[in-house]
Amino acid sequence: MVRQGVYLSAKKLMDTASGILRGFGFSEEDSRIAAKVLVDTDARGVSSHGVVALPNYMQQVKKGGIDPKAQIKIVSESGSVCLMDGCNGLGQLSGAKATLHAIELAKKFGSSVVSVKNGSHYGAGAYYAMMCAENDMIGIAISNSTPVIGVPGSKGPAIGNNPISIAAPTASGTPIVLDMALSIVAVGKMMNMYKEGKEIPDGWVFDSEGMPSKDPNDLDRGGSASAFGGYKGYGIAVMAEILSSILPGAGVAEQLKDWILYPEEPSRLGYFIMAIDISKMRDVREFKQDVSSFTDGLHNRPKAVGTDRLLIPGEIENEIMERSEQNGIWIPDHAYAKLVNLAKEVGLEVEDISSKGD
Amino acid sequence: MVRQGVYLSAKKLMDTASGILRGFGFSEEDSRIAAKVLVDTDARGVSSHGVVALPNYMQQVKKGGIDPKAQIKIVSESGSVCLMDGCNGLGQLSGAKATLHAIELAKKFGSSVVSVKNGSHYGAGAYYAMMCAENDMIGIAISNSTPVIGVPGSKGPAIGNNPISIAAPTASGTPIVLDMALSIVAVGKMMNMYKEGKEIPDGWVFDSEGMPSKDPNDLDRGGSASAFGGYKGYGIAVMAEILSSILPGAGVAEQLKDWILYPEEPSRLGYFIMAIDISKMRDVREFKQDVSSFTDGLHNRPKAVGTDRLLIPGEIENEIMERSEQNGIWIPDHAYAKLVNLAKEVGLEVEDISSKGD
Repeated sequence: MVRQGVYLSAKKLMDTASGILRGFGFSEEDSRIAAKVLVDTDARGVSSHGVVALPNYMQQVKKGGIDPKAQIKIVSESGSVCLMDGCNGLGQLSGAKATLHAIELAKKFGSSVVSVKNGSHYGAGAYYAMMCAENDMIGIAISNSTPVIGVPGSKGPAIGNNPISIAAPTASGTPIVLDMALSIVAVGKMMNMYKEGKEIPDGWVFDSEGMPSKDPNDLDRGGSASAFGGYKGYGIAVMAEILSSILPGAGVAEQLKDWILYPEEPSRLGYFIMAIDISKMRDVREFKQDVSSFTDGLHNRPKAVGTDRLLIPGEIENEIMERSEQNGIWIPDHAYAKLVNLAKEVGLEVEDISSKGD
Repeated sequence: MVRQGVYLSAKKLMDTASGILRGFGFSEEDSRIAAKVLVDTDARGVSSHGVVALPNYMQQVKKGGIDPKAQIKIVSESGSVCLMDGCNGLGQLSGAKATLHAIELAKKFGSSVVSVKNGSHYGAGAYYAMMCAENDMIGIAISNSTPVIGVPGSKGPAIGNNPISIAAPTASGTPIVLDMALSIVAVGKMMNMYKEGKEIPDGWVFDSEGMPSKDPNDLDRGGSASAFGGYKGYGIAVMAEILSSILPGAGVAEQLKDWILYPEEPSRLGYFIMAIDISKMRDVREFKQDVSSFTDGLHNRPKAVGTDRLLIPGEIENEIMERSEQNGIWIPDHAYAKLVNLAKEVGLEVEDISSKGD
């Protein structure tokens, strides 16, 4: 499948995304913060979680599921831990502000845990984990999500695809970043494979009776996806749910409202954000050198026949980030078209974005 | 395969294990602490990490890899984070004492991270995570280990099977506990399957050329195991290594000395121990009720045809724990025989253990 798209400069994409957000009632500052999360995500090539999501988020604003004026607030704080209420604001705002607070607390206490309730879909968790890494911290960000993963041997979805993101700084200046949901492959990717006539391997998807299925559309018909690695991935999904949603008292599993299907309802998601200030544990420069030596070692393993290159977590995205800085940010045509429509809707100058990043 | 074994009372197993430890130069108190880790692990049915490991640990004591007089010490502490030096003591002692300290710090600061260097094999990480859960905390324990997992597409092992353990308290009083290494199935289990003539599925093991193998003995001939879930499990292994070994400045991957192959050398393992005091975030009783409601929901999913029961993490081990309290603790014959030999070696009354738990 050829991926059709356009290249836009970071500045143009930022101006457009933040202009749209302002048009829907977000403050100047919040618009900038949220647009940066989205645009940086596109710049890393994670187009599925970038500006393409703006129309759905703005649908939530229009229907009431997201309050554009909401400000995340501290419910309680004790030393290194803080419970925050996202107040049904945009997830990118709750995510970024909770992470900023986690970084502040970690500077003060060495490590921190910020739990968030009444969150909305926060996009790519990598952004928040990387915020920590930029501050010479290890960052962990987990969000729950509406159920899609099944209990092994059961019928139907029971737990979210709860994305887990972990980042650490390295000597090169580019962090190492793990960012993954818990199904074997992304649901969107399965759908694309199916459309292209590729076979879905056994065990990726189960139908509503809990039997293996070759059709990912079963996920919309009461079926479920397997967690990666079967029982082990399921175990991670369960603990990720406890950390991200039960710890803050957010909506748990089927209590959540899908942000695309029910834009009129608060999503009630929870986040777990954790930061560890490396300097409080050991010399940061040495830590970074050790991470880089370790990852160099992984890169330099002898390759098996048929393998072109060996990868470390986040490497592909980091490379795309570099290319984006040189060539502009690629976004898919369909995302671009939606962006143009949204821009028009709030009266933004459309030529601002149709010049395609020159 | 019929598993032959004997049942011993917890008291007898404790007396014997701690008597052996005393005989090898551990203090009265340390012997009790370490024996409890081992015996509780056997009581949960995790025989591979219980008293069966004592002969190898004592071999390390005899050869110099473990110092029976070592006391874990604080290298530096800042607020909620602490770096500790295990000083090549027994891993169960470093693990339990580091966790006790993590619990103290979390009581004070709400959450904590204790990083340990110069650790030895600490057995079942579940024990440490459960120590936190018993104190109404969420506990996370990660240790690194000698390389067995390969970088996808490469030849040879590059990262340890880095076990990850997470526990949280529930309303029933029995914690929910995830405790897993990162290979698709345990290496020991693969070996047993192979011996029994069962086929090892493609992708579990790779030979020294990085090609799929049906023979787990390739792991001793320069081969590697796949992480569970391929790239995703590999990503978790990488981040687990950074958290457990690079954060404290412990031995990383191939810098480690295998505790069984090189008993004369310090193992240089690292641990990551984290505790979160739930009461600092929300009402503990409500948290526990929410966890139990969630796991009840998982249990009560409709079952697919062919499934007898649905499980949550740690459920089987918790059941065995209950049975052990009633019937005594089962240990395999080969572990029992080794225990008798060790007991004799230090002049312990052998009849103390040969009465088989009556």
